[in-house]
Amino acid sequence: MNEFGLIQRFFAEAAASRAAAKNDSMLLLGIGDDCALITPPHGQQLAISTDTLVAGRHFPLETDAYSIGWKAVAVNLSDLAAMGATPHSILLALSLPSADEDFLHEFSRGLFAICDQYGVQLIGGDTTRSPVLSITITVLGWLPIGQAITRAGAQAGDLIMVTGTLGDAAYALRHPRSPLQHRLDRPLPRVAFGQALRGYATAMLDISDGLTQDLGHIAQASGLDACVDVACLPLHAVLQRCLDDNPNHPAVLHDALAGGDDYELCFTVPEQSVAAVLAEADRQQVQVTQIGRMLPRQSAKTQVQLRLHQQPFVLQQIGFQHFD
Amino acid sequence: MNEFGLIQRFFAEAAASRAAAKNDSMLLLGIGDDCALITPPHGQQLAISTDTLVAGRHFPLETDAYSIGWKAVAVNLSDLAAMGATPHSILLALSLPSADEDFLHEFSRGLFAICDQYGVQLIGGDTTRSPVLSITITVLGWLPIGQAITRAGAQAGDLIMVTGTLGDAAYALRHPRSPLQHRLDRPLPRVAFGQALRGYATAMLDISDGLTQDLGHIAQASGLDACVDVACLPLHAVLQRCLDDNPNHPAVLHDALAGGDDYELCFTVPEQSVAAVLAEADRQQVQVTQIGRMLPRQSAKTQVQLRLHQQPFVLQQIGFQHFD
Repeated sequence: MNEFGLIQRFFAEAAASRAAAKNDSMLLLGIGDDCALITPPHGQQLAISTDTLVAGRHFPLETDAYSIGWKAVAVNLSDLAAMGATPHSILLALSLPSADEDFLHEFSRGLFAICDQYGVQLIGGDTTRSPVLSITITVLGWLPIGQAITRAGAQAGDLIMVTGTLGDAAYALRHPRSPLQHRLDRPLPRVAFGQALRGYATAMLDISDGLTQDLGHIAQASGLDACVDVACLPLHAVLQRCLDDNPNHPAVLHDALAGGDDYELCFTVPEQSVAAVLAEADRQQVQVTQIGRMLPRQSAKTQVQLRLHQQPFVLQQIGFQHFD
Repeated sequence: MNEFGLIQRFFAEAAASRAAAKNDSMLLLGIGDDCALITPPHGQQLAISTDTLVAGRHFPLETDAYSIGWKAVAVNLSDLAAMGATPHSILLALSLPSADEDFLHEFSRGLFAICDQYGVQLIGGDTTRSPVLSITITVLGWLPIGQAITRAGAQAGDLIMVTGTLGDAAYALRHPRSPLQHRLDRPLPRVAFGQALRGYATAMLDISDGLTQDLGHIAQASGLDACVDVACLPLHAVLQRCLDDNPNHPAVLHDALAGGDDYELCFTVPEQSVAAVLAEADRQQVQVTQIGRMLPRQSAKTQVQLRLHQQPFVLQQIGFQHFD
């Protein structure tokens, strides 16, 4: 079996057998032709996004292959979650230095594990040789027409809320093999909760580049300022302990405010919808925390104001830039 | 302006202004949110495909940035052409070593030039730093339900036809700065002709890995053999002259039969549809050549038989594999 055959074995056959098992009436033609063909469900619109992970840049070089396959899908599903969309399928563009059978086996196990968990099918792709391991996934989902939650709908007075805890992935990156390692390697995109926020959240995104920077996108798109109370940030017990020892622990505050890779949802909610959101969070057993409020813009430039005990709080570095 | 700002300038703003100018009623939300949103046109199905180009592998390192941008879109549009689909939009995942302003300017000029020429919009993407320049594009198009031309519909007795001339790109790769350089750098996907073949062609694909290998995919998917008359292969005058000097010129025959990157269409047509196909070719001024015929399968394994003056013809190497 040549190298093409290997890759065929790992992806196309697994995808085809899964597609047959799922009997997806939307999917007419998956891997193996020039294009995949999908019949759109009635009354729905397509949500589509693409994200690349480069080895050594978006995950540590020592990351295991299973986690790489998992994470490449997770970060893309998180973009769908952030619109409130229902995932349908992915296309995989995989560039790797060699057709390493062990790597491909573990990578595909991780990729299909998350696909199965979220009911997503692999419908197409491309495999190329490259000196650097790089994975680009395009994700497709569906939304009832007009119900997408964009970044631009926040209103002054809306509460700012986040799911889960913040800074876990950044902490794990600084502390290899910590109890938070899974938060860096195998994020769980908040797909079901994102869908449940349709009709309640006025704006939403997923936190991939750090809370401050990402919340700035909602503020900017909505023409508002945002004010965050640093004392309210939801922290994992591991990070909270560091802060208990040193309330101004700069690294932990940086993890929580500017750490990337959390893939939690940040969204805005009008006062009158808060009870419904909290009830849904309770039903799904998702931690949801109010961390601040959207405010009318105070100057020409959108600001994300950080406060700690009513005082302005200044974080030295903000955000994670791919081009740093 | 930081490096993110540069990339914003080159892509998002250009895409937004084009989207506004085009006033596309299908496109609800393009670049700048977590996903792009598209309302499917009534009665149509989505055709989607993804392809990666890696510098030094899918194009020579010395290729100019404009051509790289052009070609990255072209090879993807060619996949839509091969299904008979109408292109709608692309997502761009760009990985590059540095935010080189000159490169980005020329790359984006080439990318938008072909997008404009084919009426396609850039609706999303991701930009990452990587040691190797790599471009993954996902292309979306639409087809009336049930009218896609797959690889699997060929019937025994169907004629095998190709557009244009074969081997030009492979020849150009072997002869830098030849008159055929544009065929390697700036392919023109046969989008309009692909659409015109709906209802006539029984199977189709685009020739990206070489005629023999790609035609083998049609034969395999259709459960048939294919027989090609090497004397019928359409050649550009530059290649024909080489063959006039030496009728068994191995490199030229290899270019035509196994050279990649031509992005011409190869399709099968029942006898009764040939006249209609030739009339459409004439109308669109597309060269179309009959090169062989689909045959019942003669053994358990699909074969692409090559003939020259009624005799079996053997080509030493076949096809272009990304993993070679």
